[in-house]
Amino acid sequence: MTAIRKWKPLHSQLVFDNQWCQVRQDTVELPNGKIIDDYFVHIRPDIALVLAVTTNQEIVFVRQYRHGVGKILLELPGGSFDPQVEDHLTAAARELEEETCYVAQQLTELAILYDNPVKDTNKIHLILASNAQPTGKQQLDITEAVEIELIPIQDVIGKIASGEICVSGTIAALFLGLDHLAKRSPS
Amino acid sequence: MTAIRKWKPLHSQLVFDNQWCQVRQDTVELPNGKIIDDYFVHIRPDIALVLAVTTNQEIVFVRQYRHGVGKILLELPGGSFDPQVEDHLTAAARELEEETCYVAQQLTELAILYDNPVKDTNKIHLILASNAQPTGKQQLDITEAVEIELIPIQDVIGKIASGEICVSGTIAALFLGLDHLAKRSPS
Repeated sequence: MTAIRKWKPLHSQLVFDNQWCQVRQDTVELPNGKIIDDYFVHIRPDIALVLAVTTNQEIVFVRQYRHGVGKILLELPGGSFDPQVEDHLTAAARELEEETCYVAQQLTELAILYDNPVKDTNKIHLILASNAQPTGKQQLDITEAVEIELIPIQDVIGKIASGEICVSGTIAALFLGLDHLAKRSPS
Repeated sequence: MTAIRKWKPLHSQLVFDNQWCQVRQDTVELPNGKIIDDYFVHIRPDIALVLAVTTNQEIVFVRQYRHGVGKILLELPGGSFDPQVEDHLTAAARELEEETCYVAQQLTELAILYDNPVKDTNKIHLILASNAQPTGKQQLDITEAVEIELIPIQDVIGKIASGEICVSGTIAALFLGLDHLAKRSPS
């Protein structure tokens, strides 16, 4: 039993409210009784992150420009969704097809992760997409330019160790996915 | 050579500016010539994330309340720093000692990761802290309440697979750290 306790929320106010960016200012009471009136939280949509394995035992990656850090990075496909409108498996299938044109025979949720549980509200749903094939239709958003890259499963760990794959969520997903696939495969 | 190109920054403005939360609104030109005038970026400080291995071959974890998602989570110790004021190794040693009272004999940078390169500006410096011992002094911030947990190296993968460890950066750090330690140890 942990001695760590949750904070008690006293008041919450949206202090920046735009279609693409929402910031909440919370007043909370800490377990030691102290009151903090300026704890900022970024309200972000849930993400479906897709580890798609092709029928040739490759993993489907996307290379994209990422404006937060100003770099072109290699990541797993994925995107945001509204759980009120579609479930996480439907969102994963949609994002995979829209970004890469790949369609999977089977979708399985492997884990729920958090990228930044300190400041962000959102969950990352990690979905394994098995037996994926390029039979769908790529449909990119206005801000998206995507290069698809297929990497054989056995080459992925080297690309993490070398730093070519450097986004936490993608690395965590590969760790969980490769562990899951290793346990499932006949020895 | 990738065909993906960076966006061209045209204008940038701080639209929310508080000591604890800064949001920038960028106007950018996409490679297809389109102009976007409402791309929001969260300016966040760099993080030193510490994978500390004790002299007994355990990893030092911290259990803390995380207000963004409202949960008590098990993570690696770490915290933010200003690269203008201290370097990443000094920051890692300081954060490790302040949060856990552990002091390491050797600090090595294993990787630079990104938690959310789409929306956030910051880097995560992953530091391996070797031969750590509880010889320092714990000094917590006002908002911090931390439970220290030592987990034997061989038990860590099970806690990731079970979902008990569920923060992307911590999982990515463990993946890279365990891979590094396995390559370094005599077979």
